[in-house]
Amino acid sequence: MKPPKTRTGLRLRIYVKPDVLLGPGRADLLEGIRDTGSIAAAGRRMGMSYKRAWSLIETMNTEFGADVVSGVKGGAHGGGSKLTALGEELVTRYRSMERATQAAIRGDLAALTRKMSVIANKK
Amino acid sequence: MKPPKTRTGLRLRIYVKPDVLLGPGRADLLEGIRDTGSIAAAGRRMGMSYKRAWSLIETMNTEFGADVVSGVKGGAHGGGSKLTALGEELVTRYRSMERATQAAIRGDLAALTRKMSVIANKK
Repeated sequence: MKPPKTRTGLRLRIYVKPDVLLGPGRADLLEGIRDTGSIAAAGRRMGMSYKRAWSLIETMNTEFGADVVSGVKGGAHGGGSKLTALGEELVTRYRSMERATQAAIRGDLAALTRKMSVIANKK
Repeated sequence: MKPPKTRTGLRLRIYVKPDVLLGPGRADLLEGIRDTGSIAAAGRRMGMSYKRAWSLIETMNTEFGADVVSGVKGGAHGGGSKLTALGEELVTRYRSMERATQAAIRGDLAALTRKMSVIANKK
């Protein structure tokens, strides 16, 4: 997974229930599966092993109480995977919440960025 | 620190710059210092050792390029600590962004909660 420290901006983690997490890594992985049709390929573009990607999908299946990916056969190189309706909804809702949050925090975030420039210029 | 898994809802992490983080634990600690006048007491109410609380403050001082807490003397039980203007601003802006985000994601989050009820009722 890309280290968060290389990015500026928002990392939104939503606990839909206390043990049910929807966060940026999970959303990226689901989106990758939607785009590539493959858990292995989706993991690769995040620098994540197939084993770890698959384990994260299984964790989501358990937490959300239904499968988020279907058609998973043939291991790392075979088969094809696609999102279930639930998996699609999780990606869509997450990106929607992320966009809404970016808009909602814009003013405060700009003020903090200006503050940090002022601090840096005093040195 | 309280384990995030015991809470439902939002965990907002903001990278003001790639290496400058403002997240829920840091905001809670700053708010605790504002409320108690003590790093030790603020840490205690989060289940955090004095050493860890103090280390987190030092990390924030470094990342933000200026002190977030002042008047730190006397170790775990002595002295009194208060937020600097920067520390105050970080708490205020973080809570403002958190409130704005809660409002912004309300619809999507409610839809996900309903979805999970539907899944649970099918079992």
